[in-house]
Amino acid sequence: MRAQIITIGDEILIGQTLNTNAAYIGDALTKAQISVVKTIVVGDDETAILEEFKTSFDRSDIVIVTGGLGPTHDDITKSCIVKFFNSELVHHEEVMQDVKNIFLRRGRKMPDVNKAQALVPKIARIIRNQRGTAPGIWIKKNKKIFISLPGVPHEMKAMIDNDIIPELTKLNKNKDMFIKLKNLLITGIGESALFELLGDIGELLHGSRMAFLPSQFGVKLRITVEEAGEEVAINKLSEIEQKIRFKAGKYIYGTEDETLEGVVGRLLNERGLSLAVAESCTGGMISNRLTNIPGSSSYFERGIISYSNVAKVEVLKVNEDELIQNGAVSPESAKEMAEGVRSISGTDIGLSVTGILGPAGATKDKPVGLVYIGICDDKTCMVEQFFFGEDRLLNKDRASQAALDMLRRYLLGIS
Amino acid sequence: MRAQIITIGDEILIGQTLNTNAAYIGDALTKAQISVVKTIVVGDDETAILEEFKTSFDRSDIVIVTGGLGPTHDDITKSCIVKFFNSELVHHEEVMQDVKNIFLRRGRKMPDVNKAQALVPKIARIIRNQRGTAPGIWIKKNKKIFISLPGVPHEMKAMIDNDIIPELTKLNKNKDMFIKLKNLLITGIGESALFELLGDIGELLHGSRMAFLPSQFGVKLRITVEEAGEEVAINKLSEIEQKIRFKAGKYIYGTEDETLEGVVGRLLNERGLSLAVAESCTGGMISNRLTNIPGSSSYFERGIISYSNVAKVEVLKVNEDELIQNGAVSPESAKEMAEGVRSISGTDIGLSVTGILGPAGATKDKPVGLVYIGICDDKTCMVEQFFFGEDRLLNKDRASQAALDMLRRYLLGIS
Repeated sequence: MRAQIITIGDEILIGQTLNTNAAYIGDALTKAQISVVKTIVVGDDETAILEEFKTSFDRSDIVIVTGGLGPTHDDITKSCIVKFFNSELVHHEEVMQDVKNIFLRRGRKMPDVNKAQALVPKIARIIRNQRGTAPGIWIKKNKKIFISLPGVPHEMKAMIDNDIIPELTKLNKNKDMFIKLKNLLITGIGESALFELLGDIGELLHGSRMAFLPSQFGVKLRITVEEAGEEVAINKLSEIEQKIRFKAGKYIYGTEDETLEGVVGRLLNERGLSLAVAESCTGGMISNRLTNIPGSSSYFERGIISYSNVAKVEVLKVNEDELIQNGAVSPESAKEMAEGVRSISGTDIGLSVTGILGPAGATKDKPVGLVYIGICDDKTCMVEQFFFGEDRLLNKDRASQAALDMLRRYLLGIS
Repeated sequence: MRAQIITIGDEILIGQTLNTNAAYIGDALTKAQISVVKTIVVGDDETAILEEFKTSFDRSDIVIVTGGLGPTHDDITKSCIVKFFNSELVHHEEVMQDVKNIFLRRGRKMPDVNKAQALVPKIARIIRNQRGTAPGIWIKKNKKIFISLPGVPHEMKAMIDNDIIPELTKLNKNKDMFIKLKNLLITGIGESALFELLGDIGELLHGSRMAFLPSQFGVKLRITVEEAGEEVAINKLSEIEQKIRFKAGKYIYGTEDETLEGVVGRLLNERGLSLAVAESCTGGMISNRLTNIPGSSSYFERGIISYSNVAKVEVLKVNEDELIQNGAVSPESAKEMAEGVRSISGTDIGLSVTGILGPAGATKDKPVGLVYIGICDDKTCMVEQFFFGEDRLLNKDRASQAALDMLRRYLLGIS
């Protein structure tokens, strides 16, 4: 099956918004063994939209459209669908109830303009939207499938994952090449050092493909295996993964959509350990990431963002004289902050971060990018020194990632 | 002049790489008053590429292609151009020297495969590449322009900025239409309620365009004015903005690339006020956002993430009996947390958030999505109640946005 993706919206055309929707759908279809042959972006213009509907529906088996389903005047996708399929808009009571419930849950009055969300093309089957007011639209005609989804990313993603991909997978059963993908999530080593560590890539892959996808959080290694026979593909992928783990295992914190904070949370839960965090330069990012995980209250007790020195002394009980002598950005302060937050919270572990993330704050001896991370338990403390870059926001990402990874390695007993 | 952008590359189609090139070019063309009418992505496939060349060149005045100009076997854009224009490849000595110089500068031997980079379509004018080996290609035919650029973003960007846009601007001189854009950043009101508040959109815009771009952080209103005469366009844009501000001004926190945390930081700085934050359900996100702003240490004193009730009592001095009686998620607790964090920190303002963000934690009376936000200064406290959605991470975004916006309105004295 061949698919085309159409994104509707001036904001994408003029470069104000990146087309993350098309990338998400392209990725999901590829994983479901459906070839994406073309992606198109057009503006909020009826003639242009109708023309793309025609060309794409003529040329492919599946067309997935996103955008233009909202309740306001610039949302014209639904009227274009009705014209294109020569159908009409009819009231759909289930959709009306879904929309009303959304406003009810949020304790807000439903503006009248939302009544139009319950009007759907007569020819369509509805895909319910659990997160917003615009339902998805599924039309089957001439053995082809036309799908229209809202452009709000989290609404679209839920529908792609829960409805569209499972349905399309059922329809796409007869194929002979099997593509299997695996993403290994790596941190604490740079892209080129990782490349060297892995050695001969050709020998490693034997004709399969691998991409290095670096970011401030680490490197994602994406392995793609394509074989005739599903089992062959699965076995080959597993073999490649094992070889990589043998060489770089300690840097691999997870796979696919796992997060480092999720991995750390699972380890804390498994070991029945509690955590308190003292942050200076990261300003709450580490605690924020840890509390993104549902159930984190069972191990995360509190976080102290001791941005001022007064807060370090008053809340964390850091010794004031030593703080002045060593400076807030020092291994000694990192240790005292980790000890302090552990002691006031009564947790098993204290984690601390202090550093200079820029643009200001550097001294002769302490450059922008210098960060100390401390971990204390009831027996011992350890502090590590890091040098990151110049950019404040990237440095926050890097420092929070390094702190969570140091905690991961501490919990696993690897250094 | 109307332009279309074609991006060539499997990695974009299957969602491994975001199409940042098309966004960059779309933005640059729009600023140069050239309308982008369509963006297309196709894979590394000759038939598909030739077909898009034909359709796009038929339908627009300018076609800009990126990708597929590298020296390896999967780069086929150049051979497609030769076929499409019925031209031939010829050796270009200046390009050859440029390529040799690049390897010379890097102290590396030039691999033979790079000789092919000096072969260019006879029909083309060359755009020199200062940063890589693939030259850009500029072809004029039937008063239309066809441009092909390398896909490496920094190479492409340099050529767009230094060569393509200046040239196209010269050609586009006799235009009489001026496009002006403005983005208004809005929060605290839903898309459809905002739509109703603005009233008759046709009357408001008088032929100009406006898009509603919603997210969990609010709504971005993008106004586009296109007029004969630059001053006319500027005046009309300003008139529309004023009308919107008259009706919805209190919800508008900024324009263009501003952030709410940046706006709040500026207001605190201007008023010489200091802030401490007590977060429960948002887990550090508010403090994290505030400290994203360089110089935030001048007003942000500390943050307390009182995730456990013990932390609320011990650190924030919330009354334990009342906490048990009212529950941690209550207007009383929000008030006590804001008062407490202000009092222990000695700041002018205390801000607090407590709520149930899901998936667990709901009770019979308190649903997932219920959040209380408190603000205290030395004279008074205020608490507001919010109902957000079901998704934990979106709720963190929404709650942090609502808290920062409540602080903004407090600082501006608007309710």
